[in-house]
Amino acid sequence: MRITLARFMRAIEIIRKKRDGCELTREEIAFIVHSYTRDEIPDYQVAAFLMAVFFRGMSAAETQALTEEIMRSGEVIDLSDLPGYKVDKHSTGGVGDKTSLVLAPLAAAAGVIVPMISGRGLAHTGGTLDKLESIPGFRVDLSIEEFRNTLRKSGLALAGQTNEITPADRKIYALRDVTATVDSIPLITASIMSKKLAEGIDGLILDVKVGNGAFMKTMDHACNLGETLVNTGQRMGKRVAALITDMNQPLGRCIGNSLEVIEAIETLKGRGPADLTELSVELAAYMLLLAQPSSEFDEARQKIRELIASGAGLEKFREVIELQGGNPGVIDFYSELPLARLRRAVGAPRDGCITQINTEQIGRAVMEMGGGRARVDSKIDHGVGIELCAKLGDWVKAGDPLCFIHAQTEEQEQAARLRILQAYCIDDSSPRLEPLVKAVIK
Amino acid sequence: MRITLARFMRAIEIIRKKRDGCELTREEIAFIVHSYTRDEIPDYQVAAFLMAVFFRGMSAAETQALTEEIMRSGEVIDLSDLPGYKVDKHSTGGVGDKTSLVLAPLAAAAGVIVPMISGRGLAHTGGTLDKLESIPGFRVDLSIEEFRNTLRKSGLALAGQTNEITPADRKIYALRDVTATVDSIPLITASIMSKKLAEGIDGLILDVKVGNGAFMKTMDHACNLGETLVNTGQRMGKRVAALITDMNQPLGRCIGNSLEVIEAIETLKGRGPADLTELSVELAAYMLLLAQPSSEFDEARQKIRELIASGAGLEKFREVIELQGGNPGVIDFYSELPLARLRRAVGAPRDGCITQINTEQIGRAVMEMGGGRARVDSKIDHGVGIELCAKLGDWVKAGDPLCFIHAQTEEQEQAARLRILQAYCIDDSSPRLEPLVKAVIK
Repeated sequence: MRITLARFMRAIEIIRKKRDGCELTREEIAFIVHSYTRDEIPDYQVAAFLMAVFFRGMSAAETQALTEEIMRSGEVIDLSDLPGYKVDKHSTGGVGDKTSLVLAPLAAAAGVIVPMISGRGLAHTGGTLDKLESIPGFRVDLSIEEFRNTLRKSGLALAGQTNEITPADRKIYALRDVTATVDSIPLITASIMSKKLAEGIDGLILDVKVGNGAFMKTMDHACNLGETLVNTGQRMGKRVAALITDMNQPLGRCIGNSLEVIEAIETLKGRGPADLTELSVELAAYMLLLAQPSSEFDEARQKIRELIASGAGLEKFREVIELQGGNPGVIDFYSELPLARLRRAVGAPRDGCITQINTEQIGRAVMEMGGGRARVDSKIDHGVGIELCAKLGDWVKAGDPLCFIHAQTEEQEQAARLRILQAYCIDDSSPRLEPLVKAVIK
Repeated sequence: MRITLARFMRAIEIIRKKRDGCELTREEIAFIVHSYTRDEIPDYQVAAFLMAVFFRGMSAAETQALTEEIMRSGEVIDLSDLPGYKVDKHSTGGVGDKTSLVLAPLAAAAGVIVPMISGRGLAHTGGTLDKLESIPGFRVDLSIEEFRNTLRKSGLALAGQTNEITPADRKIYALRDVTATVDSIPLITASIMSKKLAEGIDGLILDVKVGNGAFMKTMDHACNLGETLVNTGQRMGKRVAALITDMNQPLGRCIGNSLEVIEAIETLKGRGPADLTELSVELAAYMLLLAQPSSEFDEARQKIRELIASGAGLEKFREVIELQGGNPGVIDFYSELPLARLRRAVGAPRDGCITQINTEQIGRAVMEMGGGRARVDSKIDHGVGIELCAKLGDWVKAGDPLCFIHAQTEEQEQAARLRILQAYCIDDSSPRLEPLVKAVIK
């Protein structure tokens, strides 16, 4: 640490100012971000600052400044030499959410440049990188040069974050995680948007999940986050929109890395479950709309549907798998993917209608079998997972399968079974079903 | 640091609970205090916790638990073998406040046992220990054994805090100081009361200062602090009362260590300024009342006045100076005290009435001459100070002395003069004068 008294005293003043509800200047926010990234102010001052932000919030100008300064803490990729409009998609995290694998090839097949930098799963939610790594040989650790080349060749690249991008975000996120300051809308916004905008994109579609499987549990919270994300991106001169979408049950029928890749490929083949197909089409159509603002939404949606029907989306996916070193055989032979040893049904304990699914519990069941990460450094088992048969509003008879567990061991299977039985509520009447897309913020 | 994952995770849960406004259990508060004192949880988690407390406050039970656990982090002196009721006094800090030097001998002369452990000055306020150390030879660094012996012999001991007492408070206070979490009523309360109750006292009188020279600027804030202090002490089975007193001008006429000792001795001789005499008598009478709850306040006050008139208070002060190694000659020969080289009048710039004195500026003027501490490790010059001639409501002619500056150098004198001229407001009509004792909380 190279802490000087002047920096130290200045940090106290900035903490106090935020604590007392005053608006910070761009320069004060830059001071905190860059001093902290360079270890010039201590963790404990930043921890107090973050908790003050948790309570006081941030104005639109403060949130924009925080986002931009975190973005500038590392490399900002310049894709301006690539012709075309660059649009990415970000989801706030859900269970069974493999839309990225479907919409990215579709949007790219429609002519949008898709420089997609994704994250890994955390807690009960899955991550696009883990799913992609189910495909034997697929490399997500592209250098910025490789990323750029892949993008140039196919209009699509699917990679993980490099160390050069937003080092301030990594440091601040790690501190938030251990000081109970994660759940703050301006801090979430700055973390998401700084990383996305460092990719050199022109537009971004956001999928803000709400429900018992999402980090945002209420519609109020989700809309507030969606508006802040959109507003911050737009203030930075980008085209940004957000869909608020239901996460009160897993999306599609499969949870677990290989299983989700299979379901994504099925969807690109036109045989996917209705909810996953609908959301992927909506999001891809919005990406197209952001790239070509003069077009009509219905046309955009129609175009995406045609790219499924023609198989153009599927071929784009095959192309990117090849370009990134993966085995494209998985598209035709699912047995090329790592799969679990056991596949066991979980029977419904009684007759009735599925009225609730504790989605977080389903996510946890997969995570505990090794399909997700309890901690950042956990190893992933790509084969394990859950294949749902019964979803909200479905009527079942006692003994009918609620789902199939894909496990490596009997112990895993038993533990997952317990969680699943606790997660399902079966009752005598139908639940009110929520629409999948609950709101659009533009 | 001996941080284990379990402790680390537990700390996050406790921060989150406080952040979300839930009441913490005694055990959770004990966990934070003792884990932190033993370096078992990191500074940044405690910083986030303290900021959450700043925003959420603490219930009476939480404040009591925090106070008791901080108290128990070190030695708690047991004075139960000494006969008599032990009462101390604490002030939240003011300018020119030398009441401790007057009331401690008076209360002891009245038969109260006074185990007084005081602090040093900080920022613009003075501290009793610094004042006592003006007296050549006077030792405030008594061991607990010496403290007990002095108390046994004279019923009075005036000492500084030893390292054995409330180590948690030192560590937490240092962190609050650099994370803008000082101004929190439960945290202030726990810091004050844990130290005071670790002295082994049965009762405590609190002087909560309010006004432009105090840390509490509004009556609301001061009353809120006074009530929390009294309530916390009473919940711990102690007799506690608080006076809310005016600090919109320095107390008495002298500010600066030797000058304040002289003024305290003058007051014990019956020749002190009216405000200092009044407040010292009131506080000493309350100490007597706490020791003998059946007595009447008017009688207690009368008894204290008689102990001034008879010289018994002065003799008690002489006795404690001798017992603690000081030169008792200072009582008769003020020239035995260290005094500054220069004494210069500051003339009134115009005719009029003194309507405001920026008391904090007066305190700062003395501090900057070396009479107080800008930082914890600053060296003190006991001789410098300010002797006020004009106080609130006094009418002056242009050129009349507002005060005399006692300085060592011309530069010091010039800087102090500037501050003083800025601090005084002279106007054409009298101000509304505040009563000295504004409220009593019992």
